[in-house]
Amino acid sequence: MRAAVLHAPGDVRVEDRPDPRIEQPTDAVIRLTAACICGSDLWPYRGIEAVDGPTPMGHEYVGVVEEVGSEVTTVRPGQFVVGSFFASDNTCEICRAGYQSRCVNAEIMGAIGTQAEYARVPLADGTLVATPDLPSDDLVPGLLAASDVLGTGWFAAVAAEAGPGKTVAVVGDGAVGLLGVLAAEQLGAERIVAFSRHADRQALAREFGATDVLTTRGDEGVAELRELTGGLGAHSVIEAVGTQESMLQAIRATRPGGHVGYVGVAHDVSLPGDELFFSGVHLHGGPAPVRRFLPELIDLITSRAIDPGRVFDLTLPLEQAAEGYRAMDERRAVKTLLRP
Amino acid sequence: MRAAVLHAPGDVRVEDRPDPRIEQPTDAVIRLTAACICGSDLWPYRGIEAVDGPTPMGHEYVGVVEEVGSEVTTVRPGQFVVGSFFASDNTCEICRAGYQSRCVNAEIMGAIGTQAEYARVPLADGTLVATPDLPSDDLVPGLLAASDVLGTGWFAAVAAEAGPGKTVAVVGDGAVGLLGVLAAEQLGAERIVAFSRHADRQALAREFGATDVLTTRGDEGVAELRELTGGLGAHSVIEAVGTQESMLQAIRATRPGGHVGYVGVAHDVSLPGDELFFSGVHLHGGPAPVRRFLPELIDLITSRAIDPGRVFDLTLPLEQAAEGYRAMDERRAVKTLLRP
Repeated sequence: MRAAVLHAPGDVRVEDRPDPRIEQPTDAVIRLTAACICGSDLWPYRGIEAVDGPTPMGHEYVGVVEEVGSEVTTVRPGQFVVGSFFASDNTCEICRAGYQSRCVNAEIMGAIGTQAEYARVPLADGTLVATPDLPSDDLVPGLLAASDVLGTGWFAAVAAEAGPGKTVAVVGDGAVGLLGVLAAEQLGAERIVAFSRHADRQALAREFGATDVLTTRGDEGVAELRELTGGLGAHSVIEAVGTQESMLQAIRATRPGGHVGYVGVAHDVSLPGDELFFSGVHLHGGPAPVRRFLPELIDLITSRAIDPGRVFDLTLPLEQAAEGYRAMDERRAVKTLLRP
Repeated sequence: MRAAVLHAPGDVRVEDRPDPRIEQPTDAVIRLTAACICGSDLWPYRGIEAVDGPTPMGHEYVGVVEEVGSEVTTVRPGQFVVGSFFASDNTCEICRAGYQSRCVNAEIMGAIGTQAEYARVPLADGTLVATPDLPSDDLVPGLLAASDVLGTGWFAAVAAEAGPGKTVAVVGDGAVGLLGVLAAEQLGAERIVAFSRHADRQALAREFGATDVLTTRGDEGVAELRELTGGLGAHSVIEAVGTQESMLQAIRATRPGGHVGYVGVAHDVSLPGDELFFSGVHLHGGPAPVRRFLPELIDLITSRAIDPGRVFDLTLPLEQAAEGYRAMDERRAVKTLLRP
């Protein structure tokens, strides 16, 4: 099959790799309908995370089940399925508490690589959720978004306890931040403040439910947000970047007793204990347990209540994956969808 | 009046200070029935926090109202009252959300000093809670504990979401940690694991409801706790120390999706963002909004459902405050009660 492989920073190639096969009786093999490039794929692409030899890329996926192992009971060949970037058994105590991304048997889909024609999905019963019917083509981008960026933005909004009567601020205007806006709106937030400097992202944020847009960042952004909130700060802040500046902006933008939901993968972040202590905020985040939300998200998408697929502003054939990476790296695209 | 004043690290003197008076119409002046020395008083006593000239000490207090300002309506002279270490209006948006320690008009009682015969209490209506009757003398230590250490341990247990079915671990065997054990027990925790190396504190922890005691700490303590919890870690961890080691122990002892309630005042703590991210825990803490819990705690104490006054293992006249500090500094006492 054809698959995207990162050879070195900046060097993504689509090349032949062995077709995946059922290795465990709990596996499924899916034929990918669509895959995409994640903001987190840019960390190794940019050389910020080490690249240790040729690495298959991608961890977001929707597709049609080709084959299942002998123990798989909840999905069958021919079904359209959505999964998360962590394979999970969905039965262990951690999964049942809603933290499937930390399942005791979790496997990282990124190590398998889904920017490809086919992928093996471990723990298929616990990982994959089938759509009620084969979705029409225009629903595919939304369902693909559910696999990571929507699920992650949704988790951030839940972790930030976005809801009725709340002012929610969103730090980060990438796909996850924008879908955090959408999630906050769906969860009933009263006011949603998006931090963004890019006109196209501002427009999408407003379309997803942002009531205010601030173009400032860091402590200047915090000061502007405080002005909007009677000096108190937001009830809920979604952090979707993962840098020292963005984390401190999120914490400082939150009122005492408020909630920060952080999902930007932390890079070189070190939180000062005394500032955190006296902030009095709740802090929760990490790799999103997307599987927790998939049934609800699939329902919202297939019923056309939400259209998270709007975050894809570039669609390319898988063979042009390298251009997809470049476009995101150079911020010409918010998010690239790849069609195998 | 007589009052304890810190002149330099290790140098506490009881000396004459001006009697406090009503300064604002929202003030009350109370005659202290009892005060005490806090673990956090040891930071400046040990020179870890700078001492900037002679400093009145103490922020925990119970007493009888002597006089109230013209705008005070909820307490009156002759009533026995308990207050928190932050004066708060209890009416602002932050107070109403339960974060009175971050009231927009908060005043720090530690700057006033309650290791004294009398104290002025700002924002008396919002700060003080009167007991139903004048309490008998044996209830005074418990009510005094409610003013800070019990209220703080209780907040930590609430922040850690201690409750039925939960395993709660407690890092720190000082008065706050021990009362965190008591709080977890009252909140219905199934299993309570106290980390302690001191026989007397272990005994009190068990009396307060600890089901297990571990004498290890740091990563060794985490490993032992994981063994007790099927490899997963505790659902809830109370952190009541405030050092880098204790914070990391608390985070590492918590299962993914679990809750850390941290109330040890952070000193030289820096949390690695990537470890926190991948831990998947909830983190909440800070200066406890004791006022939120006072009505409930006073009720539990005066009905003799709990006896948090057991944490006081040394009682001295106010005049001997210096010895009280020495005893706590040298760990000869868990907590010293001072009688003016």
